[in-house]
Amino acid sequence: MVTLELVKTIARQSATKIVLVVLDGLGGLPNPKTGKTELETARTPNLDQLAAGGICGLIDLVSPGITPGSGPGHLALFGYDPLVTDIGRGVLEAIGIDFDLQPGDIAARGNFGTVDEQGTVIDRRAGRISTEECTELCQLLDDMVMDDVKILVHPVREHRFAVIFRGDGLSPYVSDSDPQQTGATPEVITAKYAIARRMANIANEFIDRAKVTLADHFPANMVLLRGFSRRPQLPTIGEVYQLKPVAIASYPMYRGLAKLVGMEVLETGTTIEDEFTTLRQNYADYDFFYLHVKGIDSAGEDGDFDRKVAIIEQVDSALPRLLDIEPDVIIVTGDHSTPALLKGHSWHPVPIVLCSKWCRRDQVAEFSEPACISGGLGRFPASQVMALAMANALKLNKFGA
Amino acid sequence: MVTLELVKTIARQSATKIVLVVLDGLGGLPNPKTGKTELETARTPNLDQLAAGGICGLIDLVSPGITPGSGPGHLALFGYDPLVTDIGRGVLEAIGIDFDLQPGDIAARGNFGTVDEQGTVIDRRAGRISTEECTELCQLLDDMVMDDVKILVHPVREHRFAVIFRGDGLSPYVSDSDPQQTGATPEVITAKYAIARRMANIANEFIDRAKVTLADHFPANMVLLRGFSRRPQLPTIGEVYQLKPVAIASYPMYRGLAKLVGMEVLETGTTIEDEFTTLRQNYADYDFFYLHVKGIDSAGEDGDFDRKVAIIEQVDSALPRLLDIEPDVIIVTGDHSTPALLKGHSWHPVPIVLCSKWCRRDQVAEFSEPACISGGLGRFPASQVMALAMANALKLNKFGA
Repeated sequence: MVTLELVKTIARQSATKIVLVVLDGLGGLPNPKTGKTELETARTPNLDQLAAGGICGLIDLVSPGITPGSGPGHLALFGYDPLVTDIGRGVLEAIGIDFDLQPGDIAARGNFGTVDEQGTVIDRRAGRISTEECTELCQLLDDMVMDDVKILVHPVREHRFAVIFRGDGLSPYVSDSDPQQTGATPEVITAKYAIARRMANIANEFIDRAKVTLADHFPANMVLLRGFSRRPQLPTIGEVYQLKPVAIASYPMYRGLAKLVGMEVLETGTTIEDEFTTLRQNYADYDFFYLHVKGIDSAGEDGDFDRKVAIIEQVDSALPRLLDIEPDVIIVTGDHSTPALLKGHSWHPVPIVLCSKWCRRDQVAEFSEPACISGGLGRFPASQVMALAMANALKLNKFGA
Repeated sequence: MVTLELVKTIARQSATKIVLVVLDGLGGLPNPKTGKTELETARTPNLDQLAAGGICGLIDLVSPGITPGSGPGHLALFGYDPLVTDIGRGVLEAIGIDFDLQPGDIAARGNFGTVDEQGTVIDRRAGRISTEECTELCQLLDDMVMDDVKILVHPVREHRFAVIFRGDGLSPYVSDSDPQQTGATPEVITAKYAIARRMANIANEFIDRAKVTLADHFPANMVLLRGFSRRPQLPTIGEVYQLKPVAIASYPMYRGLAKLVGMEVLETGTTIEDEFTTLRQNYADYDFFYLHVKGIDSAGEDGDFDRKVAIIEQVDSALPRLLDIEPDVIIVTGDHSTPALLKGHSWHPVPIVLCSKWCRRDQVAEFSEPACISGGLGRFPASQVMALAMANALKLNKFGA
């Protein structure tokens, strides 16, 4: 497979602009009553026109049969090998709340849990306390300093929080304290390598102090930590593709993922129209635009076929605001399928349409899963999408003489 | 590519069942008189109905242009990388006769050959003696014991036999004695590493004794050994996929391959109906069924287009016995193409149909090579088939958060 290193050697700057629209959870499955998927059911004249003028296909975000999480799905779309690029659990939680992780920070995922008098874990989620309670408890633990290391504790949702250890010489190579089951006692955190001993000591001391602080806060009388990790040092979109990239996304997780690959992230509103407006207003200042739409996935996760259809139609209605500015390359696709029938992410490949002056258009005139099967792009790995985008923007030199 | 290690981390158990029907040598080439392949020519209403309700495609067992042997073809279907997983020649012969290879056994492929008075090989196949003669000669050599190592000699066919060395501390890293040409003398077997010296000594002593025993059995007055190998330690289907797998196959080679990947192997009859009956009778006890049909390949190898068509039709007629029990996931495909026109295995991709509640069916309504080109699965590596099967059985967790 073509690697980022190779693309980097042939990337060149040019005046053209690329817009990548990611409709989260786009792919679906047919409604048994009608035999049509969400995307087939939706009236999408603008997407269909894009398909008619462009080239279509189906992408596998990770590999056939593998259901991608949002992290791997997006990394693949940005051109990174999702199997090689590992983002730790702690880092994902931190970026999921838009926490600005610094390169040396170590992040861990935390649960408030319940232990009995013997210290045995009897509930790993402290009865799923409310987000408000979680926020109050985090304030009690936030901002400690131990051995020159600052410890930041931020609520996520319900019993979940993120803890960030900030200081010099910390290492993520330590074990979890979360035993991942009830009836066991929390584990003492140990260093996997000698270099991580200081991190293990500080984490254990944090847990000890937290236990004292939380003693009267039953059922949330313990913290359980796992997934210690450091922000991965990925080559940035700017470095690899010589692009000036920007993200337009309202959900923290996707803003965080964009930051991980070196994109600027714009402030925007929560509606689809807001996002398209933000793109128009900033169109002069960047040459790569990643625009993320969340609602389609949420409807799929809720099993709400009709709402998923409705939001796809909303996107379609707003699309002229984007098409009017005539980007040199526009791609519309998704980071995974979320069929309403499955109420969750799935392994099914995702439709993609690419439109540019140079795309060599195919016969597909409808943007849907079955129509895209016959598309000129075929079925291919999502990690090749960026190279295609770059090629269609005439931003890649010839490979070899 | 997704590795077995990764699939292992996301596999989960569930109540669903998967049936993988391998029609050996399924793919073909058009008859010049009709322009239709064997599969297109055959009347296959049941396979066509399966295609209409499922999703189709074409698989490459190894890689485009590469003609797979039965070993690599099957390993790929079971999810193993056929380029990495090397099964030695000796092991293939042994499992080809259904010999129950133990983990420490070293197997070699043997030929009875002819040497002249100077010891020069004048015929590497001893005039292709009959299988009966071979069997008698093997009995003369079978069951020797040298230095606590037991030597088992089993006939294969014509001049071919398998020899298995059973004892502690044996190593497969020794050279061949078969010079692979006439006019040369048999090679003295040497150790490639110090650890293999004992194996080399025992193998040489076996050859010396065999030569004495065979002295009066011209033209079969010598043995030529090659391909010393040990049963590969593959992760089992059970370990990787958390499945309870079983094989239904009447030919020894395929029973052996199934054992190599940790499947149980059921006793069954020799007809297609027998195999489907065996599957029905054991359906409650397993959740993964590998069913192998050999006749299609044999007809192709014989260049008998019409017989290949007839056996495909037999399979189709028997298929309702399988479809009646409504497996959650059923896949019908082959381990390679065997076009009657080529009288042998070929590199052409093989049609595949997958049917499940969640398969996102396509427009293909006929199970044939040309129809499958337009299938929703596209053209993809066979080593991804198992991940697709697992996904459709809802037996895989999401990859990444």
